[in-house]
Order: sequence, then C-alpha cells, then structure tokens
Amino acid sequence: MESRLDQQYDFIREIDKEKKIIRQTYLSDGSRKENDAEHAWHAAIMAVLLSEYANEKIDVLKTVTMLLLHDVVEIDAGDTYAYDEEGKKTQRQREVAAADRIYGLLPEDQKKKFRDLWEEFEACETAEAKFARTMDHIQPLILNDASGGISWLEHSVSLSQILDRNKNTAKGSLKLWDYSREKLLQPNVENGIIKNDIEDKNNT
Amino acid sequence: MESRLDQQYDFIREIDKEKKIIRQTYLSDGSRKENDAEHAWHAAIMAVLLSEYANEKIDVLKTVTMLLLHDVVEIDAGDTYAYDEEGKKTQRQREVAAADRIYGLLPEDQKKKFRDLWEEFEACETAEAKFARTMDHIQPLILNDASGGISWLEHSVSLSQILDRNKNTAKGSLKLWDYSREKLLQPNVENGIIKNDIEDKNNT
Repeated sequence: MESRLDQQYDFIREIDKEKKIIRQTYLSDGSRKENDAEHAWHAAIMAVLLSEYANEKIDVLKTVTMLLLHDVVEIDAGDTYAYDEEGKKTQRQREVAAADRIYGLLPEDQKKKFRDLWEEFEACETAEAKFARTMDHIQPLILNDASGGISWLEHSVSLSQILDRNKNTAKGSLKLWDYSREKLLQPNVENGIIKNDIEDKNNT
Repeated sequence: MESRLDQQYDFIREIDKEKKIIRQTYLSDGSRKENDAEHAWHAAIMAVLLSEYANEKIDVLKTVTMLLLHDVVEIDAGDTYAYDEEGKKTQRQREVAAADRIYGLLPEDQKKKFRDLWEEFEACETAEAKFARTMDHIQPLILNDASGGISWLEHSVSLSQILDRNKNTAKGSLKLWDYSREKLLQPNVENGIIKNDIEDKNNT
C-alpha cells in the first residue's frame, strides 16, 4: 500500500520524462529545439511577469500552476505541432488517456484538482485559462523571432496559419497580442521569413 | 527609450539562456544531465504539490516564483556544483553581479521585487525561502536516486557531504527531509553508491 508521500514522489519522478518531449521551437540562439519542461518554465515566469496585462483579473498562482503542468499529458501523447493537422485529429483522445494515467499517480484529492485544472486549461473559458493560453502561444513567438525564425522557415509557416493558431491569444490579453503582433510577427512578415498569404497588410 | 513591455520582453528573452546552464544532476533515466530551467520547473511543481508539508504556513505563489527565478543568476555566474569547495568561495560575488545585470533588464519596480525575492531566497530565513530551499535540495536527491546514483558515483560523494549540504533542508519541512532520507539516501548508503563515512548508522 503506497503512502500519500509515495504517490506524490511517484508523480514527481514520472513528470521528469517531460524534459525529453521535444517541441518544434528552437532556443533563442538557434542551437537546439526546446523541450516541454523548458517551455512550461518559461511560460510560467511570463505569467508572473506579465499578469498586469490580463484582460480580466487573474489568480496568478492558479495560472502558473496550469502552465507548469499543462504539457504533462505529452509524456504519453507526444507533442502535437501547432501546424500538424493530421496529428491534431487524434490529439484530444491521446491526451485524455494520458491525463487519466499520469494524474492518476497522485493521491485522489490532488488527482482531481490537477486533472480538473488541465481540463480548465483545455476548455480555455476562465480568465486564468485564457491568460495561460496567451502565455503558451506567445512564448514560442518570442523564441521563433529571437532565433531568426528557424522553425517558421523549416515548416514554411504562413501568416494565415499563425493568425489562425492565435485566434484566441487576444482573449487572455489584447495588449500582449497587439504588442507581439507588432514586434514579433510584423518584422518577420516584412523580411519574408513568415510567408505573407494575406493580401491586406492591416490583418497582420 | 524602451517601453515597459520592451523591458519585460528583453528579460524574457535573456532568461532563455538558463536552458543552457548544465547541472551535475542526471535525468531520472540517466540519459543526460539536466539544465537549470528544467530543474527550476521541477522544483516549482514540487512546491505546489508538497506545500502541505511545510513546517510553517507558506505563500505558495511567492515560493513558486522564488524557485522559478532562483537560478537566473547562473546565466552569468555558472552553476556552482554543491560539492565544489573552490567554486563556492567566489560564488556570492559572481551571483550578485549577475543579479544586478539580469534583474536590471526589468522595469524598476519589477527589478526591485524580483531581485529582493532572490536575496530572500539566498538568506533562507523566511518560511517561503526555507521551503523553496527544501525543494531545491530534494529535487536532485530524487533524480540522483532514480538514475542509479550516477552523479553521486561520478563525484564520489559521501554521506557526510550530503548531510552537510542538506543541513537546512529540514528547516523547510521536517517531514519531507525525514522521508527523503529514509527513501532516497538510506538505500543508496546500504548498496554502497553513497560512501558511508559516518560510523553511526543512526546519523543517516
């Protein structure tokens, strides 16, 4: 019979595997792709630093916790790249099974609490979930811009794809989305790194 | 003239470098050493999951923020290994200069807030700082044990060194230190991975 602490330490050991789930985003110096744990760390710090720009008042600890744990499901389900349309068809099913197994390692009360928090993040309806999503989506824009757009170039990503991917980003913070569009996207459209497949430049 | 958001995004870009600061601890599968960002992510999640065991009541968001940012100084100062006695002599001086530069990228109010939080972590006197230190020290014990003690073996680490390193670990949580000593250290003393240089077995 496992004790409460045994279960908690088991979960802590299990999530170590998130450090091996590789994303498509490169570090800012372009030297290698980052992993899920690094991404979650970066996005959690962003939530702490940028909470003043949330459209609605947020509980910062809840938002940070969401971000720290939001990719745990990828230990089993793998990273589904933002522009992988085939992968996205089975993503939800794979991630739900992963959530059952991985959060299931925790004691019952924490299993419910953190699995519910992941579902709340996925549903993207509460103020915290919307702001967490904004951090989750702006973090790779910062790295893609800083690394000279390697990942955008490798995948021939177009402006319409990025705008579609970010259709909810302004819901967490209009101010941060506007700033990111102007400072991170527009220059990369102008220099041709992001393919401009939208006629009206005002849409960028 | 940089705007507030320019300064905040500069800091977010700068700390990306923490993903390249390599520690002496291996991932649980022993495949490679982990980096500071991964360590901070792991320790921050531990603080969320294990706060119920803190000796004193803690502000969890403050503790998590401390842990997320505690190693930012190592971008300039490098990681000083727990058992590197030479390196530790200049550690404080190197880290203070790093804190001045890196937190200095932030707007004045945030520079003061997060630099003060780092000093609070370093001083290890408040309830949050003590619990953060406990997480910071137990996280590598979990990985060292899980990876078969590779890092302990590589550095011929002895029990007295580990106990000295962890002399403040119980100050954040007596319960977690007792559990970790029993479940993570004792078995590795018994199988000879950690050199037992202490006569009285009760000291382990």
